[in-house]
Amino acid sequence: MSEIKSVIMAGGIGARFWPLSRRQNPKQFLSLTGDLSLIEETARRLQRLSKPEDIYIISNHRYSERLTALLPGIPRDNIFFEPVQRNTAPCIGLAATVIEQRHPGSVMAIFPSDHLIGNERAFTGRIREAAAIAGSRDVLMTIGVEPTRPETGYGYIQLAGEIQPGCHQVRTFAEKPNLATAQRFISSGDFLWNSGIFVWRSSVFLQALQQHLEDVYDVMTELKPVVDTPEFEAQLQRVFPLSPSVSVDYGILEQSRNVAVIRAKFPWSDVGSWQEAYLRSPKDQDQNVIQGEVIAVDASGNYVRTEAQRLIALVGVKDLVVIDTGDALLVARRDTVQDVSQIVNQLREEEKDEYL
Amino acid sequence: MSEIKSVIMAGGIGARFWPLSRRQNPKQFLSLTGDLSLIEETARRLQRLSKPEDIYIISNHRYSERLTALLPGIPRDNIFFEPVQRNTAPCIGLAATVIEQRHPGSVMAIFPSDHLIGNERAFTGRIREAAAIAGSRDVLMTIGVEPTRPETGYGYIQLAGEIQPGCHQVRTFAEKPNLATAQRFISSGDFLWNSGIFVWRSSVFLQALQQHLEDVYDVMTELKPVVDTPEFEAQLQRVFPLSPSVSVDYGILEQSRNVAVIRAKFPWSDVGSWQEAYLRSPKDQDQNVIQGEVIAVDASGNYVRTEAQRLIALVGVKDLVVIDTGDALLVARRDTVQDVSQIVNQLREEEKDEYL
Repeated sequence: MSEIKSVIMAGGIGARFWPLSRRQNPKQFLSLTGDLSLIEETARRLQRLSKPEDIYIISNHRYSERLTALLPGIPRDNIFFEPVQRNTAPCIGLAATVIEQRHPGSVMAIFPSDHLIGNERAFTGRIREAAAIAGSRDVLMTIGVEPTRPETGYGYIQLAGEIQPGCHQVRTFAEKPNLATAQRFISSGDFLWNSGIFVWRSSVFLQALQQHLEDVYDVMTELKPVVDTPEFEAQLQRVFPLSPSVSVDYGILEQSRNVAVIRAKFPWSDVGSWQEAYLRSPKDQDQNVIQGEVIAVDASGNYVRTEAQRLIALVGVKDLVVIDTGDALLVARRDTVQDVSQIVNQLREEEKDEYL
Repeated sequence: MSEIKSVIMAGGIGARFWPLSRRQNPKQFLSLTGDLSLIEETARRLQRLSKPEDIYIISNHRYSERLTALLPGIPRDNIFFEPVQRNTAPCIGLAATVIEQRHPGSVMAIFPSDHLIGNERAFTGRIREAAAIAGSRDVLMTIGVEPTRPETGYGYIQLAGEIQPGCHQVRTFAEKPNLATAQRFISSGDFLWNSGIFVWRSSVFLQALQQHLEDVYDVMTELKPVVDTPEFEAQLQRVFPLSPSVSVDYGILEQSRNVAVIRAKFPWSDVGSWQEAYLRSPKDQDQNVIQGEVIAVDASGNYVRTEAQRLIALVGVKDLVVIDTGDALLVARRDTVQDVSQIVNQLREEEKDEYL
């Protein structure tokens, strides 16, 4: 079996880590739980799976300098920048087109750039299992993580019949549920978290595009003949914006019959909130996570970061998130998850672009 | 009766409003509850009592530029700057020495520069009453405010026999009590809050100094002959530091037999904490007190100020104090009073002078 081609999707802009995440500094570039940024963590983790020349990155032109500086080990020829955001189906289509041209018949594995994964040995094992199946069958493999709580922030995959041990057909994909539904999912035992990690042959994905997202497929058809030629960049600029914006979940996976899921147990998080960043960070004896010059008196359970040259003093406060970026400051209850996006929405409405 | 000479004591440096209050910007220069700084409020309030040429200010040389800029209406000749801090007895001694030289036999009224007073009509009335008594008797008049709660942050004055309606001899001065003692004070009915406002003839005070604080009196004796001469400033620099540092409460009032108290009812606060600043400030519909560019989502009961050009976003937080001065940020539970001084103490110990 040939080497797995690993593709990192790194074009997203998230609002949930405002004020640290900005248009110019999205979540994948943040170090939320340790020293490395999430995308560096992702690239490091994939070294167990693929050699550097088999790792690909699809990102947005906004982040070109940042990315190439952060990941000097990835060949420049493997990094592609979308001229506009078109969601995940065209993003993966672009990667599949390049990989299929360069290495026909390859198995590609697609990874978000901004998730956290524990037990990397188990992680690598599950991806290899999925790759082995995808190498021999025309199937779209997904990785489903056994849920540990009725999380309402994740999508779910419902299992159908077992194809082989640990690998099932997929009955349905469920969007983020409410709490009651999430609890039902958990107790039913046949729902897994949709990890956003996918494994398939590039050719199989391009066939799926042709079948379910013809507009996207047409764009890829225009790119295919110029891959690795001097015309590629100009062609990408011209045709990529013509693609519709559509997610791989909605546009492909929910429409396809040949979707399977590997049941996985490794610790996984999409780090979707300050609360999760807190829970997954090392803490001091007062259960504070502190970065920067901070004095804490009778303060516990707080997640505090200052990027500015500034002293932060905490007195008598518990379970807060305090994020100071120099031009903006967030003070939030740690378990208030959704409302940080509300701030960003309000800033958008008020056209306060300097804070976005 | 001649005009009352009003003396504002404005030399203090307080730690309780850190990070807004600093060595260079103590509490009296802060606007904690409205537009004017506390010292401007104090000077404005005294206009009911004294003409500008009868208002005196004793402050510290650190604040000379600040003060003269803030209070252009007060004659420059009435503003004196201590070369070093020596607590309230030498401060009042200096004022008494100047006033006695300029206007022998005057009644002087002494006011802290950083308190809040409601019902200024009642306030002015009580001061005039005290001045009338002090004008005709060799007595040290204090103003005692009827307590409205068992406050542990104030000193108390215990009443003895009535001299005339509303005016009592003083049995004792009590330091800041614990809660049980404060409750006992309140229910006894014969304790008043020590407002820190005093009224007496300058000559009577100088006699009290001679009797109880001879070291301080000696310094004043050296100043007396040079008042309003070109030598005064150099003499002040030379002799004032020789004075011991002692409070008028401990050094004079607690030692003297001729102390009386006027029972007053006007609303009074020494604004000793962020909590009190919050309680005494106008609030929005969510009971927030907000100054600066602030977005609040599901946030109530907070006191938020930014002096910096910076956006503050609050999400889901209640009853916090958030004070942003550009170089430092305080996030505290609003009812945590004493511990803000702890931060300042810690900064002193760590010699982080840039934050003091």
